[in-house]
Amino acid sequence: MSKPKVVLAYSGGLDTSVIIPWLKENYDYEVIACCADVGQGGGETDGLQEKAIKSGASKLYLLNLQEEYVRDFVFPTLKAGAIYEGKYLLGTSHARPVIAKHLVEVAHKEGAVAICHGATGKGNDQVRFELTVMALDPSLKVVAPWREWNIKSREDAIDYAEAHNVPIPCSKSDLYSRDRNLWHISHEGMDLEDPANEPKYDTLLKLSNALEKAPDAAEYVTVDFEKGVPVAVNGKKMGPVELVELLNVIGGKHAVGIEDIVEDRLVGMKSRGVYETPAGTILYKALEILESLCLDRDTQAFKRQSAVRFAELVYDGKWFTPLRESMSAMFDSMAETVTGEVKLKLYKGNVSSAGVKSPYSLYNENIASFGDSAELYNHKDAEGFIRLFGLPLRVRAMMNQAAKK
Amino acid sequence: MSKPKVVLAYSGGLDTSVIIPWLKENYDYEVIACCADVGQGGGETDGLQEKAIKSGASKLYLLNLQEEYVRDFVFPTLKAGAIYEGKYLLGTSHARPVIAKHLVEVAHKEGAVAICHGATGKGNDQVRFELTVMALDPSLKVVAPWREWNIKSREDAIDYAEAHNVPIPCSKSDLYSRDRNLWHISHEGMDLEDPANEPKYDTLLKLSNALEKAPDAAEYVTVDFEKGVPVAVNGKKMGPVELVELLNVIGGKHAVGIEDIVEDRLVGMKSRGVYETPAGTILYKALEILESLCLDRDTQAFKRQSAVRFAELVYDGKWFTPLRESMSAMFDSMAETVTGEVKLKLYKGNVSSAGVKSPYSLYNENIASFGDSAELYNHKDAEGFIRLFGLPLRVRAMMNQAAKK
Amino acid sequence: MSKPKVVLAYSGGLDTSVIIPWLKENYDYEVIACCADVGQGGGETDGLQEKAIKSGASKLYLLNLQEEYVRDFVFPTLKAGAIYEGKYLLGTSHARPVIAKHLVEVAHKEGAVAICHGATGKGNDQVRFELTVMALDPSLKVVAPWREWNIKSREDAIDYAEAHNVPIPCSKSDLYSRDRNLWHISHEGMDLEDPANEPKYDTLLKLSNALEKAPDAAEYVTVDFEKGVPVAVNGKKMGPVELVELLNVIGGKHAVGIEDIVEDRLVGMKSRGVYETPAGTILYKALEILESLCLDRDTQAFKRQSAVRFAELVYDGKWFTPLRESMSAMFDSMAETVTGEVKLKLYKGNVSSAGVKSPYSLYNENIASFGDSAELYNHKDAEGFIRLFGLPLRVRAMMNQAAKK
Amino acid sequence: MSKPKVVLAYSGGLDTSVIIPWLKENYDYEVIACCADVGQGGGETDGLQEKAIKSGASKLYLLNLQEEYVRDFVFPTLKAGAIYEGKYLLGTSHARPVIAKHLVEVAHKEGAVAICHGATGKGNDQVRFELTVMALDPSLKVVAPWREWNIKSREDAIDYAEAHNVPIPCSKSDLYSRDRNLWHISHEGMDLEDPANEPKYDTLLKLSNALEKAPDAAEYVTVDFEKGVPVAVNGKKMGPVELVELLNVIGGKHAVGIEDIVEDRLVGMKSRGVYETPAGTILYKALEILESLCLDRDTQAFKRQSAVRFAELVYDGKWFTPLRESMSAMFDSMAETVTGEVKLKLYKGNVSSAGVKSPYSLYNENIASFGDSAELYNHKDAEGFIRLFGLPLRVRAMMNQAAKK
Repeated sequence: MSKPKVVLAYSGGLDTSVIIPWLKENYDYEVIACCADVGQGGGETDGLQEKAIKSGASKLYLLNLQEEYVRDFVFPTLKAGAIYEGKYLLGTSHARPVIAKHLVEVAHKEGAVAICHGATGKGNDQVRFELTVMALDPSLKVVAPWREWNIKSREDAIDYAEAHNVPIPCSKSDLYSRDRNLWHISHEGMDLEDPANEPKYDTLLKLSNALEKAPDAAEYVTVDFEKGVPVAVNGKKMGPVELVELLNVIGGKHAVGIEDIVEDRLVGMKSRGVYETPAGTILYKALEILESLCLDRDTQAFKRQSAVRFAELVYDGKWFTPLRESMSAMFDSMAETVTGEVKLKLYKGNVSSAGVKSPYSLYNENIASFGDSAELYNHKDAEGFIRLFGLPLRVRAMMNQAAKK
Repeated sequence: MSKPKVVLAYSGGLDTSVIIPWLKENYDYEVIACCADVGQGGGETDGLQEKAIKSGASKLYLLNLQEEYVRDFVFPTLKAGAIYEGKYLLGTSHARPVIAKHLVEVAHKEGAVAICHGATGKGNDQVRFELTVMALDPSLKVVAPWREWNIKSREDAIDYAEAHNVPIPCSKSDLYSRDRNLWHISHEGMDLEDPANEPKYDTLLKLSNALEKAPDAAEYVTVDFEKGVPVAVNGKKMGPVELVELLNVIGGKHAVGIEDIVEDRLVGMKSRGVYETPAGTILYKALEILESLCLDRDTQAFKRQSAVRFAELVYDGKWFTPLRESMSAMFDSMAETVTGEVKLKLYKGNVSSAGVKSPYSLYNENIASFGDSAELYNHKDAEGFIRLFGLPLRVRAMMNQAAKK
Repeated sequence: MSKPKVVLAYSGGLDTSVIIPWLKENYDYEVIACCADVGQGGGETDGLQEKAIKSGASKLYLLNLQEEYVRDFVFPTLKAGAIYEGKYLLGTSHARPVIAKHLVEVAHKEGAVAICHGATGKGNDQVRFELTVMALDPSLKVVAPWREWNIKSREDAIDYAEAHNVPIPCSKSDLYSRDRNLWHISHEGMDLEDPANEPKYDTLLKLSNALEKAPDAAEYVTVDFEKGVPVAVNGKKMGPVELVELLNVIGGKHAVGIEDIVEDRLVGMKSRGVYETPAGTILYKALEILESLCLDRDTQAFKRQSAVRFAELVYDGKWFTPLRESMSAMFDSMAETVTGEVKLKLYKGNVSSAGVKSPYSLYNENIASFGDSAELYNHKDAEGFIRLFGLPLRVRAMMNQAAKK
Repeated sequence: MSKPKVVLAYSGGLDTSVIIPWLKENYDYEVIACCADVGQGGGETDGLQEKAIKSGASKLYLLNLQEEYVRDFVFPTLKAGAIYEGKYLLGTSHARPVIAKHLVEVAHKEGAVAICHGATGKGNDQVRFELTVMALDPSLKVVAPWREWNIKSREDAIDYAEAHNVPIPCSKSDLYSRDRNLWHISHEGMDLEDPANEPKYDTLLKLSNALEKAPDAAEYVTVDFEKGVPVAVNGKKMGPVELVELLNVIGGKHAVGIEDIVEDRLVGMKSRGVYETPAGTILYKALEILESLCLDRDTQAFKRQSAVRFAELVYDGKWFTPLRESMSAMFDSMAETVTGEVKLKLYKGNVSSAGVKSPYSLYNENIASFGDSAELYNHKDAEGFIRLFGLPLRVRAMMNQAAKK
């Protein structure tokens, strides 16, 4: 009888390579390796199949999820205006559910009984992976070696790899702990562990110039949106992956989207990291500018408050939940008229509005100007407005006067 | 019998100078001019008394409200983290209630029956002035000449001034409509009326360098907070006015805090303006960094959502209301441990965190680090956490599977 | 040349009858009377056409809007769980937009230039009528006689009617001010104007028995919902109008849904009224019970907070706004699985849950019971859950201890 | 050397009696039993010391926490208007922190190293106990036998008791699982485990008559509040414990406050219970009525939304957290003018408003009435109000028309 199968989220790096023999040894599983490309880059996919097999996997799936990731996870989060704790554009958070969704699909195709991921026991990613699996197929077992095994360091892992004939990736150990995908790269660890330290941007950054290294001349870029979704850069229509890639290059050059954050992990601790999100920062800023033109005050205020909750849901790995889906239905409806072109000036870390246009603009120059527009706006109307708008204040003041007597 | 008195919010400019004879002519009031200094600058207070008397006022009050303004209005709003529509630091909004509060006090001292202000019928300021008067003494009548008279232009006003022997201020008419105080300066009108136009920063800005004109070398500044209130810059304790003035100079030099905004006025229209808030931008950023260290996740999330509402209240002129006061009680309580020092790097419009320390820091390096801290955090705990945290997702998935059968 | 036309919201009562000649006299309009049936009852539609013509109208439209009202306005508000200030089921609030929507349609059909309504200048209804007109056709003028004319009392109106040959309705003047439709009836005025007075329910109520007069035996009723919409009573499918009518009879018999409220009007004052909403109270209660089974905790909490805002929007007449529409999209999505049967016991004002079933129930007896269900829920998981859930409290306590030293 | 001590939350019942020898056997602790009286009744405290000693404890603390519980936990939650999931008045939720707070105090007095509670691994109470301990002294270990031991049934417990010479309480095993204190009693288990079953109220209820058994004559009761806190019943001042006891008797007689709930536990599952909260229901209702008179619309709306969050915090055991404390500061401020007398009619489960008075009433009969009050409210003001309030709708409609062309 054949062994039960496990689907492993596999990157080809040291950690997930070592997991393969560990799973066989400890669970007696047949290991199906699954490498999901969400734009982490590195050209590591060459020879990956061979490496996986050598490490003991029986098969490798190489999945390009970039378009699905941006279209179905990144852009709906952008449309919501969701930013975690005022700063974090959720780059790792929404990459986990798209990967886990495909792990489940592979598990179904392979008839596997379990999913395995290489996230540690202290982070958010374990939650995001596992909640997605629970939401999509709660009958699948989840194995999280970092919560079980005795490997505690890179040295342990190398020892284990050598003892099990696992090819050791020649990539040098990175000093920082990093997570990269099409949307962002995060940096943690080392000197960043003390929030009193300023990040050493010159050596830290991967996607962006440091502020001082950015060009001395500003660059203008336009972004077109249709119903809250970016569709073109500098007037050229392009798909979501191409669009994000292009804006990463432009934004990175101008040092846009570098954030240094002390954030609250779902698992109860604070952690400190630096994030680079060049395209994301441009797109959030551009969409906000367009919305200021196309959405009314009531809608903006409720959207802004709701976005705080939406960001929590995404951060917490609750993508496949009724609340996340229902809120997205609301944000889709709000975005019906968020169509137009935003011109931005990029300069040494700044993204400044340089003009915005929309066929659905609610800005009406005739009303806003200092000149007259009696038909639409009569100055005298303001008196009645203020008298009723302020009536509760007058009533309270009169009550106070009466109560004092 | 003496004439009834009106207290006029008087600046010495053309508009409020003309209002004096207009009030006498149309209401037969004795006019008490009242000039409130909230840091609008311009050195215009020299000779102001003479000018007011020549224009027909019977008396001039010159009130220095700068300290009260910053201490009792600006800093509580900062402590709330309140930003209107994601961008506007409320500079004009919270200046109006402090001025109107003192107009009412002067009215009581003088036994006046009315208050008069020079705000137009299309803006928010009329609401802020009048709501404050309603809240503090609803028996006072409010006169708003711009909603009543036939003066529609600068030329009309000059004609009216000459016909009534009002000394015409020699200050050239400003092309833009501006409001300035210690906290900010706003610019509206002219080319800004079309949101498709990029602002002409080189000629527009008053407090700040344009981005490109800012120094090529970064400058570091530290700000100390006690219970959410800034108390020192670069290690030197100073009062609120001095502190804001100093940070305005430093921030302005580095082009910090320039915002181009399409905002929703309370009176129902969108308007477009550019705001300069150098000190404010530094302080909001610094406080947010400190809070990320000192406030837990739950508190930050609720604070963030509440700040949206608080900003609306301030923007709408509802300073003297039970809800504003109650929310401030909450923000005061939240700020109990928001004490520490934030180091910031200012560079060409950017305010970057360069290190933060607090005796009340909730960041715990032992827990956050990748190393072990079994006493406080056991990796194995995460499994139980995730299983219960994700239980609703599992139950729903099982229900879905059962419902499909 | 023909006269311009006005479409008048016409009931056949004294007030709106008198408005007809007043409009002709003061505006020289041709008056198109339009009587919208939203279930106000009274059999007043017999002879209405003759009466309208005699009063001076050139035409009468009799529109039965009951089904549209319940289906498109009442049920979406029910689905949102929207209750104004914790008590008011919004009966008058959502009747105004459906009526005004049809007034605009008639105006378009007739080529009219104006809409006229008989709401007073102190109430909410004027706002609801006029905002709907503004949203659907801002070029239409709105005439609100009660804000303009000199008629201040019933006697004035009768005098005016007699002087203009308007047939005076023989219905006796009601002592209370009432508004009735299919969903509710409201009572205001008279002794109710002092909140210290207990309502005289015996003479006041129209749809319901007083509590003490309700039957001594309980009655059970079941309501079926599909996706948050009620579709059957006692197992019998029925349309929205029939369903509400039936539950009004049953609920009214058992004195269900009588509320005595001091509410805050949009125009700034508090008012006091008594509302009868028998069917509405049963349906809100039933839906809440079903949702407690079918919606998860996160969704319920966000829905509950959002419902407060939704109720404000409906109360304020902002039905045809982007925010109301977007929120409805969210509530529709939330209701996807809110399908099932609720059994209720009605007894002397009480609506008690007597059992609920749903194919989408998230209640899982195996997990909830005291017995074992180790596969789904392992008691030991709770330890890890609590340790991480409580980690921020531990960190704070440790910080406090350290800070005290 | 003496053994380390554990403080046990001890009731004298079978479960907590058995825990004593279990702790000695498994942890080798000296057991300090601690019985906290929060009004659970039953007169069980007679002979409790002897029983505790016989079971193996070295000491018994008998703590009367009733007044502290009501004053510092119940009433602040009432003041917040906090109701969990629209129905549950949080009776068990806020009893846990007051008990745990005193367990920690006893631990400090005794120099104990651990706290032990008898809550099960499936419920909320374990979380509430343990979070309180974490917040007050994270160095204390928590022992939760139900998550550890092999006792799975009443029979197991009796066997264990007999084998360890623990006196077995003669109280018959209750069929339902119940939790009672001064504020409420909850019932779970048995037939209630199927939400399709109507509760058997006749045999289930402990504090209240069933609806049909309540008196046929209504009873009126008045409650006085000072700053949101109840201070008198029927005009007689009384302390918090006496006040709640009295209203429990009156309310229970009239079958007030019986709720049948499917609720979402913090640990991820739904459970079903019946709650009796007679005094609580009267007090929540009374306070809401008084607030409708004394609080303005803005404050009420924000309070209502915030109460949803506050209820979650209390339910989740997060009493001793910065957010709970800060929100209470806000609710205290809101309650500054919530002083007055509410008259209520109790009749067969109903609590109806029968009149309300306050020196801080914001209800102004002159404004609300249909008569004239031109000074305060001019009907014509409404026109201006509506025109500006509706301006965004007009602008949007015009934009839509223009966009269609």
